[in-house]
Formats: sequence, structure tokens, C-alpha cells
Amino acid sequence: MSSQPTAAMLVIGDEILSGRTREGNGWHLAKELTEAGVSLREMRVVADEKPDIIDAVQTLSGKYDYVFTSGGIGPTHDDITADCVAEAFGDNIGVRDDAHAILVDHYGSDDINEARLRMARIPDTATLIANPVSRAPGFRIGNVHVMAGVPKVFEAMVAEVLPTLAGGQPLLSWALRVEAPEGEMAGPLGEVDARHPDVSFGSYPFFRGVLGSTLIGRSADLAALTAGINDLRETLVARGLVKIEETPPG
Amino acid sequence: MSSQPTAAMLVIGDEILSGRTREGNGWHLAKELTEAGVSLREMRVVADEKPDIIDAVQTLSGKYDYVFTSGGIGPTHDDITADCVAEAFGDNIGVRDDAHAILVDHYGSDDINEARLRMARIPDTATLIANPVSRAPGFRIGNVHVMAGVPKVFEAMVAEVLPTLAGGQPLLSWALRVEAPEGEMAGPLGEVDARHPDVSFGSYPFFRGVLGSTLIGRSADLAALTAGINDLRETLVARGLVKIEETPPG
Repeated sequence: MSSQPTAAMLVIGDEILSGRTREGNGWHLAKELTEAGVSLREMRVVADEKPDIIDAVQTLSGKYDYVFTSGGIGPTHDDITADCVAEAFGDNIGVRDDAHAILVDHYGSDDINEARLRMARIPDTATLIANPVSRAPGFRIGNVHVMAGVPKVFEAMVAEVLPTLAGGQPLLSWALRVEAPEGEMAGPLGEVDARHPDVSFGSYPFFRGVLGSTLIGRSADLAALTAGINDLRETLVARGLVKIEETPPG
Repeated sequence: MSSQPTAAMLVIGDEILSGRTREGNGWHLAKELTEAGVSLREMRVVADEKPDIIDAVQTLSGKYDYVFTSGGIGPTHDDITADCVAEAFGDNIGVRDDAHAILVDHYGSDDINEARLRMARIPDTATLIANPVSRAPGFRIGNVHVMAGVPKVFEAMVAEVLPTLAGGQPLLSWALRVEAPEGEMAGPLGEVDARHPDVSFGSYPFFRGVLGSTLIGRSADLAALTAGINDLRETLVARGLVKIEETPPG
């Protein structure tokens, strides 16, 4: 596999763990990072609890090149992400002039109440991340990007952040959708996988109407990927598995 | 808050981290556990990589009362969850007679190939979890429940497992959907939260058509929850915030 920068996603919010909300920001980020050539290696969801957030930020920040967080930067008492991230980095935090100016510009100085001022609490050494949707900014400190949980705002912040990342070679994927039981393809797939160390193969079975599996090859190297998929196709055809639909990269 | 058993979800699969598949098993489990009175405290998604899986299983198993895994127990070369979980517990693993018999019954002894036999690899000390959908079983070892990634199969296995858990008092929730900017409610909400230590309050803003936020109180104690919500409603009305839709528990 190619040497891509690595990343982790940290989702913060009781509403995900209680089942009230279906997490979707991680899925959005996963697609964007894959396209940018950054390898998302782990996702975590933790509750709105200070020790849980601090521990996750420190662990993930030390383990991966980039960390992206979602949630907990609004105006309410349970929005504690900014304070936790500051503490995780041993940084001071308070209402910062640049963030304050953005909120005053948006709400007008009369409507800035104490709760809204929470959204201007930014660690001293952080860089703001613009929020083109609802203005209250996110921020980057060290390798951690702190972003909103509301999907529209999260996605807008990801779009702001992506051009600042050092991406690697984008991973290419090539899919073969095969109508045959996964258990009959698993043997051949394993043999093909062993012959192509630069390609990673996966199998994703489906049961909708017909029984089958989508076999996916992934590689940053198009020549290696093409060779691997050609080998896989020939191997399957040789075993009599011929109903194959292909989705090449791009 | 009540003393509920705690749980973590561990999703295993490259297809989630690449963005190919949107994770949904965690959402299903979250809803089921909340209803059963088990407190889901953390979710993790890791790749199909041995060290990542073993490390996550050991960490989560030591930290929470129950762990539930999803993915990586099919017939292909990248289905390594069973072996990793066995190693995490220092247990031996091989094709086990009880699991083998289930597969023979399903596929017939002629169609049991080497790949399918992988699905009968079960740690020595594990208890099988029945799979009413596609037969290949999951298993429980220690406090870890190892289940399939295919949603229909995962959900069927969760239904098998739920009655075996020692649940706590189910958490009740009461929602107030208020059409007012979250920043205007955050102050009052924080005050109400401080007055009701047995109720946990959260705020989930929405921007669809109108601007507002759904304020949720959660507690295992209906009397405490009712008192907290009554206080919140009165406090909001006193501030002139009157467009409120309620969803009481049950």
C-alpha cells in the first residue's frame, strides 16, 4: 500500500450513543479523505464527558497524523469540546477577540449573550476554521481539527480544512459485483490477494433479491490494481463464475 | 443518573473507514441498548488489521460491562475477527464441532469448502450466538459478543443476545422541540440542568425550514424527569419562548 497520511475521526455526543441520532459525519469525512489520499484508520464516538473526550483526543492525536472532531462546540452547557481539547493540549482557553468579532458581526452586539459567548471560547494557540453556514468558528490546534456536529456545518468546515492537508496518492478502487455465494469466491479471492501484495482486496456480500458479493480491489497504483483485478476476473471465470458487473476506478 | 450496566460497540471493517459503506449497526445497537437499560458509552470503528482489533477488544472489554462487535466473521481472507478475539482472550481457536454441524446442515457436506469452514472457527471457551438468517453463528467470550456485519444478520444476533443481558432501569427521555435560536435557550437550559442533578439535559439544534432546537431531558427516574421538564418549560415560557412541541416518554 502507498504511504498515505493517517487520520482518525472523533465524534462527541450523547445523542449518538443513545440512538437518538444516526451518525453521518464520519461517513462524509471518510469519503472526502479517501478522495484526498488520506487514510482514515479509526473512528470513535464518546459521550459529552470531560475525561472521555480528553483521553480520546490525546490518544488519537498521538497515534495519527490528523484528527477530526465533530460535535460539542455550540452554546449549551453540555458543549465542552473546546475546553476539553484545550486541556488535552495544556493550552489556555478563553473568549478570543477574533472569534468574538465574528459572532458580533453575525448576531449584533446586543444579542451576544453569555451562552453565545461560549462559542468564542478558543484555545490561545489555535487557528480558526471558518464556518460559512452559521458563522461560529471551529479551530485547529496541533493536528486536531475541531468542528461542529450539525452536518451542514461539519461538511462546510471539512471543505475549508481539506485544502490545508498534505494528502497522499488517492486510493483507487475497482469493484466486481459477482452473483455467486461469497463462500464459493472466498478461496479464489484469498489466492489472488496473496499474489498481489500492493492491492488490498475486500468482499462485501449482498442478499438483496440475488445472493452475491461485491469484491473490491484497492491500491494507489493503477497498474498494480489493473493486474490484480485482471487476475481476479480470470480466476473467477476459470471457476465458472461468470455473471460479473464491473465498476473500474474514476 | 441510574446505575446501568455499560457497553461499547466495536465495528470492524475497511469498508466503513473508506467511506464505501455507511455504518448503521451501531445506531441499531444504540437504540436497542437504550431501551434495555444498558448504557452505551463508546463506539469504535477499526480496520481489518490484527493489532488494531486485538487492542480495541482488550481495551473495551476491560473498561465496560459488555462489548459488541460487528463485522469480520465471514468466509474471506480479511475476515479475521474470530482469530483476533481468541488471541485477545488468550484462548485457542479452531473449527468447532457444534459450529461445523450448523454449517453442514445448511450447506450440505459437499458444499463445505475451506473458505466456509473459516466460519466454524470459534474460540474453545466461547458460547455460540445463533444466526437465524444465514446460519453461520456468532459467539460470546467473556463479556464480548462477536456478531456479523451484514445488517440483517447483526440485528438478528442482537435480538438473540438482548435477553441474556442484565439490563438496568431503562432511561426515559422527554423532548421539547422549541422554535427559537439555541443561543437564546442555552442560558436557561444550563440553569435548569444545574437545578436537576438526576436529569441529563441536551440540546440538538435544527435548521430545517425554521431555526430551533430540540431540548431533551433523560433520566431513569420518571418523577425527577417530570420535575426537570416542568421546570424547563416554565423557565422557557417565562423568557417568552412559547412555541413548544412536546414528546413525553413512552
